Amino acid sequence: MTERLVVIGGVAAGMSAASRARRLRPDLEILVFEKSGFVSYGSCGLPYFVSDIIKAPENLVVYDAKFFKEKRNIDVFTHHEALKIFPAKRTLLVKNLENDKEFEVQYDKLVIATGARAVRPNVKGVDLKGIFTIRFLEDGIEIKSFIKENSPRKALIVGAGYIGMEMAESLVSVGMDVLIVEQMPNILGTMDDEINEVVEQELQRNGVKLLKSTSVDEFIGENGYVRKAKLSNGEIVDAELVLIGAGIKPNSEIAKEAGIEIGRTGAIAVNQRMETNISGIYSAGDCAEAFHLVLNRPVYIPLGTTANKQGKVAGENAAGGNAIFKGIVGTAVFKVFDLEVARTGLSEKQAKAEGFDYVSTVIEHGSRAHYYPGGSKIRVKLIADRKTGRLLGAEMVGRDGVAKRIDVFATALHAKLTIDEIGQLDLSYAPPFAPVWDPVLIAANDLEKKIKK
Amino acid sequence: MTERLVVIGGVAAGMSAASRARRLRPDLEILVFEKSGFVSYGSCGLPYFVSDIIKAPENLVVYDAKFFKEKRNIDVFTHHEALKIFPAKRTLLVKNLENDKEFEVQYDKLVIATGARAVRPNVKGVDLKGIFTIRFLEDGIEIKSFIKENSPRKALIVGAGYIGMEMAESLVSVGMDVLIVEQMPNILGTMDDEINEVVEQELQRNGVKLLKSTSVDEFIGENGYVRKAKLSNGEIVDAELVLIGAGIKPNSEIAKEAGIEIGRTGAIAVNQRMETNISGIYSAGDCAEAFHLVLNRPVYIPLGTTANKQGKVAGENAAGGNAIFKGIVGTAVFKVFDLEVARTGLSEKQAKAEGFDYVSTVIEHGSRAHYYPGGSKIRVKLIADRKTGRLLGAEMVGRDGVAKRIDVFATALHAKLTIDEIGQLDLSYAPPFAPVWDPVLIAANDLEKKIKK
Repeated sequence: MTERLVVIGGVAAGMSAASRARRLRPDLEILVFEKSGFVSYGSCGLPYFVSDIIKAPENLVVYDAKFFKEKRNIDVFTHHEALKIFPAKRTLLVKNLENDKEFEVQYDKLVIATGARAVRPNVKGVDLKGIFTIRFLEDGIEIKSFIKENSPRKALIVGAGYIGMEMAESLVSVGMDVLIVEQMPNILGTMDDEINEVVEQELQRNGVKLLKSTSVDEFIGENGYVRKAKLSNGEIVDAELVLIGAGIKPNSEIAKEAGIEIGRTGAIAVNQRMETNISGIYSAGDCAEAFHLVLNRPVYIPLGTTANKQGKVAGENAAGGNAIFKGIVGTAVFKVFDLEVARTGLSEKQAKAEGFDYVSTVIEHGSRAHYYPGGSKIRVKLIADRKTGRLLGAEMVGRDGVAKRIDVFATALHAKLTIDEIGQLDLSYAPPFAPVWDPVLIAANDLEKKIKK
Repeated sequence: MTERLVVIGGVAAGMSAASRARRLRPDLEILVFEKSGFVSYGSCGLPYFVSDIIKAPENLVVYDAKFFKEKRNIDVFTHHEALKIFPAKRTLLVKNLENDKEFEVQYDKLVIATGARAVRPNVKGVDLKGIFTIRFLEDGIEIKSFIKENSPRKALIVGAGYIGMEMAESLVSVGMDVLIVEQMPNILGTMDDEINEVVEQELQRNGVKLLKSTSVDEFIGENGYVRKAKLSNGEIVDAELVLIGAGIKPNSEIAKEAGIEIGRTGAIAVNQRMETNISGIYSAGDCAEAFHLVLNRPVYIPLGTTANKQGKVAGENAAGGNAIFKGIVGTAVFKVFDLEVARTGLSEKQAKAEGFDYVSTVIEHGSRAHYYPGGSKIRVKLIADRKTGRLLGAEMVGRDGVAKRIDVFATALHAKLTIDEIGQLDLSYAPPFAPVWDPVLIAANDLEKKIKK
C-alpha cells in the first residue's frame, strides 16, 4: 500500500512540507487540507495589496492548487477544515466547507501546519461591519473591496505592532486619516525606546495619530457598520474602518485535543526534527514553537521565514529524511513610510527581563560615505553580555540600508560572536553603499569600550 | 622627556593610528608626515568626484590638518616626504617638499603608513599629458580640470579592475566614449566568469567597449598630449584621456632599506599587533600585508576598510595598548552603472589554484518579494569545502540589495560557518526588502545538496 502523508494547512509551512516531501519521495501520496480558498500565498504582502501596490490577489499567490496537483502531484483540498486527529488509528476527521460533509482520512505521517489566528478584543460592537483583522488573503480582499465600496475616510488601527505600522502606511496611502491606539505604554512590544521614538516621529510626520496606554472600550455602529469607537480615555473617535492588529494566537487546539504536547507558550511543542511528542506527527509554522538560540528555550515568534524553514524540515523528516531546524534568533524587519525598522536577538527590555548582566549602546552613523548622495543616518542599538562580550541583540532604524544590515547581527548571533569579533568584521565598503566604518562596526566598537571598562 | 610617536603617511591608516594613539595617550607627542597636500580623505570617492556627483575636493576630506592640530593635538606636516628610517638611533629623515630642506626627527614609536602607488606600464608615451592614474586627491583634481579644459571625447581605460569599472561609469557620465583594454583574458582579476559576464553585459548596455587579452604597446601624442594608443592587437584607437588602472604596488621600499621584513607579497610583514620585525616600528594600510582568515596566510589586498582597522590597531599598540587585528576575508564591493558587484572569501578560480577540494553553485533569485516593486534578480555564486561544508567564498551581482547581502557571507567566513548553518540563518524578511527565502539562503540550500551527494 502507498504510504500517505497528510498535511493540515496549505500556506507557508504546510506547502513547504508537502513540496519537500515530494522532492524526496516521488512514491508518497500527499494530501493537503486547507480551510481557506487559497494556498501558498505571501500573507506578508497583504498591506501592499490593500494599498494597491499589488493590484490583484493572484499576485500574492506563489503557486495554486492546480500547480501543486499537476507539477508536484500533491492533492490540495481548499475549503476543507481539519476537525479532529485520532492518533491511535492514525486518521484525521475533515470537513468539506463547501458541502458541509465530514469524512475521515487515514495517514501514515501527519504534518500540523494550522497556523495562527488574529486575536479580536472582546468588546461591544467588535462584530460590526468595517472591523477587520488581516491574516488571510480573503481578509485583504474584503478590506480592499470595503474601501472601494464605502470610501471610509477615518481609520482606526488597534495595536501598534508590525501589522499596525504596515497598515498605517497602507491606509494613509489610500487617503485615510489614521489613528492608532495601543493599550501598552509603548509601541512595538519589546522593541526599545531609542528605536520607538524614531518610529513615532515618522508616524507623526505622516499625519498618523497615536494614542498609547489606550484601548477601545466599545465600537459604535450605524446600520450595522462601525462609525465610532469609545476609547478607554473617554474619548469618542471616528472609525469608519477598523483594523485590529492585536496579536495572533496559535491554532493549536486540534493538536491539544489529540493529546499532543503544547508548550508553555501555547503553541505546539516540537523538537529540532519538528516532531511532536506523538510519533509520526510533525508540526511547523505559526502553530508551533521555535527554539530561540539566544534565550536557549522554545519561544513563540510566528513569522513567514521560520514557517518556511520549519515546513521544509518537517516535510523532509516526514518523508523519512533526517533534517534539523536549529532555531531562530528573533530577526524581524518592517517598513513604515520611509523608515526601515529591524531587530534581531534580544532588546534591552528583554535582556533585562531575562536577568542578563548586559551592556548596551546606541549610535548613529551614515548608511553611505558622507560625500555620496542618497545616504541617511542609521540608528543602531546593540546589547551584549557584560562578562563574555557575546552579542545578545541588535535593533536598527533608518531610511536607507537597514534591512539587510541587521542580517550581519543575525549571523553573528547564530555564530555566537562577541562584540570584539563583530567590530573587526571585513564588511563590504564602497562609497555608494557604506561608509568606510560601517554603522555595524561603529556600534560594535563603541560597545566594546563599555565592555572593557 | 615627552614620548614621541611619528607616523609616516596621513591618509586612512596613518590618521587612524594617530587618532587612536591620541585618544589613549593625551601626553604623547604625535607627528604625522604626509607627502601629498591632503590628509584623511576618502580616495574611494575619487571616481564620484570626477563624475561631479561630488562637487568640491574638500567634500572628500574627512578632517584637515588644522582640525587635527586644534582638536586632537596632532602635528600634521603635509608636503613632507619621509626619506629614510634609522632604526638604530630611532630617527627619521624627512624632506620638506616645499623648500627641499631635509631634517631628522627622533621617534620613540613609528607607524609606517606609506600606502601604495599606482603601477604605470612601461610603454612609450606613458608620460604624455592626459594620461592619469587615480590614487591621490591631487589625481582627481588634475583629471577633473583636464576634462574641463580639454573636453576629451574619447577615453581609454587600461585595466578592467574595480577602479577601471568605477572610472568607466564616471567618464561615461561626463559624456565620453570609453574603451577598456585588459591584458588578461578576463576582467576583474580572480572574480569568476558567472559574475564577470553580467558585468560585461552592463558595460555593453552602457556603450563601453571592452577588449580583453589586449594591452597598450604605445601611446601616441600630439603637442605633448596623448591622442591615440597602439594596442597589442595592432589596432590604433583614439585616446584623448587615458586612465591607468593596472594595479597598485606597496610603498615598502623605505621599510626594506631600514631592514624591516618584507613579506612574500612585497608588502611590509606585520603580526596581529601590526608590529614589524623591528621593535617599536608598526605598519598599517596599503603598504602592509593582512592576514587572510580563509587562506590562513598573509596576503596583499589593499583596501580602505582594512587600512582604517589596521591603523587603529597600530595606533593603539604604539600608544602602549594591546590590540589585535585578526584579519580579513577578502570582502570587496563596487558599483558599475546600475550593477552592484560584491565578493568575499575565495572565488572558484582561487579555490582551485589553492588546491581546495570544493563544490560550487550559481543561483539567481529576486532581491525582494516577487510581488513587490523595485526588486531585481541577484546572481549568487558560492564556493564551499566539499568535505567539511565550510564556506570558502561568495560572489554576487545584481541591481538591488547586493552590497550589504555579501556581508552575511563575510560574517559567516569570520565565524567559519558551514553551508548547512548558513542555509538556516534567521535573516530578515519583509516584502519590500527580501523574498521569504532570501537569495543568501537559496544559494546555501542549493549548494548543500551538492555537499550531501
